[in-house]
Order: sequence, then C-alpha cells, then structure tokens
Amino acid sequence: MARISGSNGARTATAIRSAALTLIYRQGFAAMNLRDLAAEVGIQPSSLYNHITSKQALLFDMMQEHMATLLAATDAALEAAGPALMDRLRAFIAHHVLYHMERRQEVYIANFELRALDPPNYRQIVEMRRNYEARLMALLEEGVATGELEVADIPVTTFAMLAMLTGICTWYRPNGRLEKAELVALHTELALNGVRRRAVSAR
Amino acid sequence: MARISGSNGARTATAIRSAALTLIYRQGFAAMNLRDLAAEVGIQPSSLYNHITSKQALLFDMMQEHMATLLAATDAALEAAGPALMDRLRAFIAHHVLYHMERRQEVYIANFELRALDPPNYRQIVEMRRNYEARLMALLEEGVATGELEVADIPVTTFAMLAMLTGICTWYRPNGRLEKAELVALHTELALNGVRRRAVSAR
Repeated sequence: MARISGSNGARTATAIRSAALTLIYRQGFAAMNLRDLAAEVGIQPSSLYNHITSKQALLFDMMQEHMATLLAATDAALEAAGPALMDRLRAFIAHHVLYHMERRQEVYIANFELRALDPPNYRQIVEMRRNYEARLMALLEEGVATGELEVADIPVTTFAMLAMLTGICTWYRPNGRLEKAELVALHTELALNGVRRRAVSAR
Repeated sequence: MARISGSNGARTATAIRSAALTLIYRQGFAAMNLRDLAAEVGIQPSSLYNHITSKQALLFDMMQEHMATLLAATDAALEAAGPALMDRLRAFIAHHVLYHMERRQEVYIANFELRALDPPNYRQIVEMRRNYEARLMALLEEGVATGELEVADIPVTTFAMLAMLTGICTWYRPNGRLEKAELVALHTELALNGVRRRAVSAR
C-alpha cells in the first residue's frame, strides 16, 4: 500500500509541476490560481496541499530544479569535453543551445518570473544563476590567458553570449527549416567568432 | 475649456499607459485588473473607459506604439549613418542597444505578453517585428554581397544578434560599472566580430 501510494504521489507531484508550467507560461504566475491548477491536474483543490506547501514554494521548487538540472548537465558536458579549452567552450555553447531549444516554457518562467519570488527565494535562485554564468566566465578567462580568445570585457561578454544562445528558445520549432545540429553549429560559430583571437590582418 | 480638457485627457491617457506598464511588468497582463489600474492612476474605474476601450486594446496600443517608435527611430539612425554598409550596421547595433538599455519594462511586455494578444492583434504586432528584423537581415545580406561580412545563415544570425543585443535590458543599471557608450562599443564589437569576414589566417 505504502509503495503504491508513494508512486501515485510522485505521479501527482509531476503532474502538478507540468500543469503549473503550462498555466504560468500561459498567463503568468500572479494570474495562476490554485483552483485552476487543481482542475488542470484533475484533483480537488484541497488535495494540492498534500503535494505543495504554497504557490510561492511551487514556483521556487520549479526554478530551483530547473537551475540544478542545468548546472549538473553543464558540468557533465564540460567533463566529457576533455581538457582542451576550445573543446570545453564549444561543449558549453552546444549544451546551452540544446538545453534551451526545447524548454521554452521553463526558460520563460526561469527568466521572467524571477520577480515573483520572495526575497530569500530570489536570492537563492540568483545565486544559482551566478554559478552558471561563472562557468562561462571561467572559460573566457582561461581562453584569454592562453591567448586563444580576445575578450574586451569578461562579464559583459558572458551576459551577451548567454542572451544570444538563450534567444533560440523564443523561435525554435521542431519542424523548422534547420536541424538541431545545424542550429547548434551556427550558434557555436557565431559565439566563437565573437571572442576568438583575431588575426592581425583582420583587425 | 476644450483645450484644457483635451490636455487633461492626454495627461490621463499617458498616466494610464505608464501605470499599465508598471502593473503588467510587476504581475503580468493576465493578473492586471482594471480596478487596480484605475487606482494606480487615481481615477474611478468607470472613467478608464473614457480613455481605453478594453484591457486588450490597451495592451495592443502599448505594443504597437513601442514597435512604431522603434521602427521610426531605427530608420532615422540608419539614414543619419550615411551610405557605407559598415556605418549603417554599426548605427543599427548602437541604436538597438541604446534603445533597449533603458526600456526594461517595455521590452519585457513587448516580448513576453505577445501571447496575451488576440489573434488579429498578434498578427499585426508580429508583422511589425518582422519589419524590424528585416532591417538587420537586409544589412547582413548587403554585407555578404559586398564581401565585408561572412554570414552562414542570415535569418538565424539576425535572430541571434537581436537576442544578444536585447539581453542588456535584463541587467543594465544606470549606476553600473560601465558607461552607456562603453556598453554600446562592447556589444558592437562582439556583434561585428560574429559576422565580419575573417582573414584566411584566422580561420
């Protein structure tokens, strides 16, 4: 009994996350009410509280999970890329593009509902975002040190590159003109061209 | 009398736009109710309808005005840049960065409340956005034709560049480390490096 109830519970928790994602994306967090969320999941409003402690906690958990998954997956991709700086930089870029390409709703919420977080929750999520940005900053710094990259300002370049590579989630469609691999390659070249050391003749 | 009432009316209309911007940015369009909007402006809810026909019409007007202003200002900047392609491309980039730097709320709404527009309104705003993107696409095409630029895919590069240059509105603060002119210069170089024809030795 406990086991069955446990797995039903896990299924319901997943269904709540998924329904919340859809509702928040459609209307924004402030407009989502827990009655609509319960209806979307197909449970009684009162049963929601077996799974979440509050609407705020639900938003925080969703964002925290999004960032924790992104950080862990990024570190795995960097680890798999081997020791060469340019390989790790390419791996970071490719991973970011692929990860964001098909997470339109998650990325929307992670970026634009930050303002809906209570201050302690906000600080925690912003800290996780800083940790993520720090991965790219460290790669750029390393590339400048080895002379492979030429970066006028590391923080501004980091933010600008991330904005560029995240932008794809606003227009990517699975049945579009280009394959995922082509989009990754295009974004990788564009990003690397922005920071690669220029030959003297091209300056 | 008519004149005074006219200018009061214009002032109220401006106050409504400005209050709506703040409320939509804070909570999202779906969560904004017209009672709160009237309270923010300091008028009776019933008086709102002397100025707007509906919440939807207000959102549409705000987005249309934002895009129309952006398009007109961009064309003026391109015209002022003179005939050389690289000068016009630099002017487009600089204008985009400056325009977006201090319009955090407008840009948020223009990008993330698109989904709240009724279909005919949505189509009109998307058409205006396409016209804007077309300015940059045309510059990139021209640069490829003259041999000054090297662009693997014009539409993808256009979207990626615009995402990169728009990203600044998420983190720019007037009292930050760098001056506006420095941020414009950094973004311009990063964007141009992405598309400039590479010297053979740098490939």
